[in-house]
Amino acid sequence: MKRVLSGMRPTGKLHIGHYFGALKNWVKLQDEHECFYFVADWHALTTNYENPENIIEMRRELVLDWLASGIDPEKATMFVQSKNLYHAELFLLLSMITPVSWLERCPTYKEIKQEITDKDLSNLGFLGYPVLMSSDIIIYGANYVPVGFDQLPHLEIAREIVRRFQFLYNADVFVEPEGLLTEVPKLPGLDGRKMSKSYGNAIMLSEDLDEVEQKLKRMKTDTRRQRRTDPGDPEVCPVFDYHKVFSTEEEKAYIMTECRRAGIGCMDCKMILIKHIRAFLEPIQERRRKFDAEIKDMDEFLSGSQKKANEEAGKLMERVREAIKI
Amino acid sequence: MKRVLSGMRPTGKLHIGHYFGALKNWVKLQDEHECFYFVADWHALTTNYENPENIIEMRRELVLDWLASGIDPEKATMFVQSKNLYHAELFLLLSMITPVSWLERCPTYKEIKQEITDKDLSNLGFLGYPVLMSSDIIIYGANYVPVGFDQLPHLEIAREIVRRFQFLYNADVFVEPEGLLTEVPKLPGLDGRKMSKSYGNAIMLSEDLDEVEQKLKRMKTDTRRQRRTDPGDPEVCPVFDYHKVFSTEEEKAYIMTECRRAGIGCMDCKMILIKHIRAFLEPIQERRRKFDAEIKDMDEFLSGSQKKANEEAGKLMERVREAIKI
Repeated sequence: MKRVLSGMRPTGKLHIGHYFGALKNWVKLQDEHECFYFVADWHALTTNYENPENIIEMRRELVLDWLASGIDPEKATMFVQSKNLYHAELFLLLSMITPVSWLERCPTYKEIKQEITDKDLSNLGFLGYPVLMSSDIIIYGANYVPVGFDQLPHLEIAREIVRRFQFLYNADVFVEPEGLLTEVPKLPGLDGRKMSKSYGNAIMLSEDLDEVEQKLKRMKTDTRRQRRTDPGDPEVCPVFDYHKVFSTEEEKAYIMTECRRAGIGCMDCKMILIKHIRAFLEPIQERRRKFDAEIKDMDEFLSGSQKKANEEAGKLMERVREAIKI
Repeated sequence: MKRVLSGMRPTGKLHIGHYFGALKNWVKLQDEHECFYFVADWHALTTNYENPENIIEMRRELVLDWLASGIDPEKATMFVQSKNLYHAELFLLLSMITPVSWLERCPTYKEIKQEITDKDLSNLGFLGYPVLMSSDIIIYGANYVPVGFDQLPHLEIAREIVRRFQFLYNADVFVEPEGLLTEVPKLPGLDGRKMSKSYGNAIMLSEDLDEVEQKLKRMKTDTRRQRRTDPGDPEVCPVFDYHKVFSTEEEKAYIMTECRRAGIGCMDCKMILIKHIRAFLEPIQERRRKFDAEIKDMDEFLSGSQKKANEEAGKLMERVREAIKI
């Protein structure tokens, strides 16, 4: 059985973009492989060190969103990064053999430093986060890591670190992880930009359904269609991106035809979508409420799988120390 | 009671320069303060990652040298850094708030990179080692750290990191450590250069006494004194630096006078020194043999104090996590 590893930072409740970009795939993978899903709370500090939200609370919200989305604690091993100190030990050991130049060259490092200008990201932890990420992956001998195209350079660093370690210490302790490229549908935010909680344009998985409906009713459509009688173009309408994800082939064909000849208005089109999104969110929110009521102490709820993860990592670290002779 | 922290890298057996530069002071301090002395084996990887000696063996040799020199396990807490994962956790957390520029500016960083040209020291671990050192110190709330002048910049980084952490998280969990400047006598190598095992000019604490005698007999003296009948100058003679450490006031005065008027030869002068160095090394080596025979398993021997160190660090880390809310 192959192993899969993936993680998310606990920076707040998840939105539907997270579901279709990652969680839907996680749910599928848990039936096919041995999956380790972790709360990357140390990673949250790399960019959010200055004023971290209450990470303890955020961890709970994140795992509730996972459970709500269908991650099954009987199938996948869910755990918290900061509760497994072996990740920090491996990070430290790998930092000894990782050239700073590999990290400075990393495209996401350069991008994020350019994008985020309101925070000082010149810290050692931010520079070193691909090393921490590599540790997270290889400490479980993960074969596959679900990634988007933009994350491939990180995976490449992990693979280079593995090769360098095994060469330097003449050892065979790590698995070179491979990327599992996932098809991610386009799901823009309500204003047509990238969906992001910080833009205020997201639909959260746990958001009140009536509020979701109001938001969708105000959602941006094809801006060139100014009046009801103007024909519209679904290809440039963000609402139609949603239909591609949520609606049936018949509905999409119907909208394609009727929008283009002004046979339906935007509200007609949106009502179809609202029906689907309600039907999609309802069972998720019901599961969320159930788990939220059931789980008094999240640490306790996760304790079994946390223990399993820590033991797996501990076994690997024994072999790592043996290789270095430390 | 104030706390003292100090450590040494396990890079091989110690020489008399280590004794007079550090261990003699450690022995004194263990009677005055609560002392934590640790084997800095992770640090050994920062410059020696490529081909580390067998660190497990080196740890044993180092602790034997400590015990031989008079460190008392009943008084001081001796432990191994890599067996306390909290150091790695704190290193990781502090790396999130430590600007890379602080580390690049560190004078020893620049110096060592210039000095050691046969190894590639461009790794993240080498850049970050003042952060690891800071973690080592502040995780025990150490008040004092015995340092030489050249190490003061490291201590300053530790102090800056403490202030930055407490400011960012509005917390009061760390003690700002202070340097305990130690008077270190000049004790050159047998060739007059700095004493170093890698120069082959050192007298090891555990070296066979007859070999030590032979080495001292060949030791470099005042190079301008070519013949027995030439007068010498103790002020420029490396052997006289040793007399300053080992011999009595009377002996020093006698040598001062007689060397300068060629009343004694270099061998006469050295025989006085040899007597003292034998008397100095004999009890050290006897204790070393005793401990070496007694201690079958060094990990087991240290287990009690290791446990104490880990518990102390664990308590501090609880407060650190609470401050960050992680």
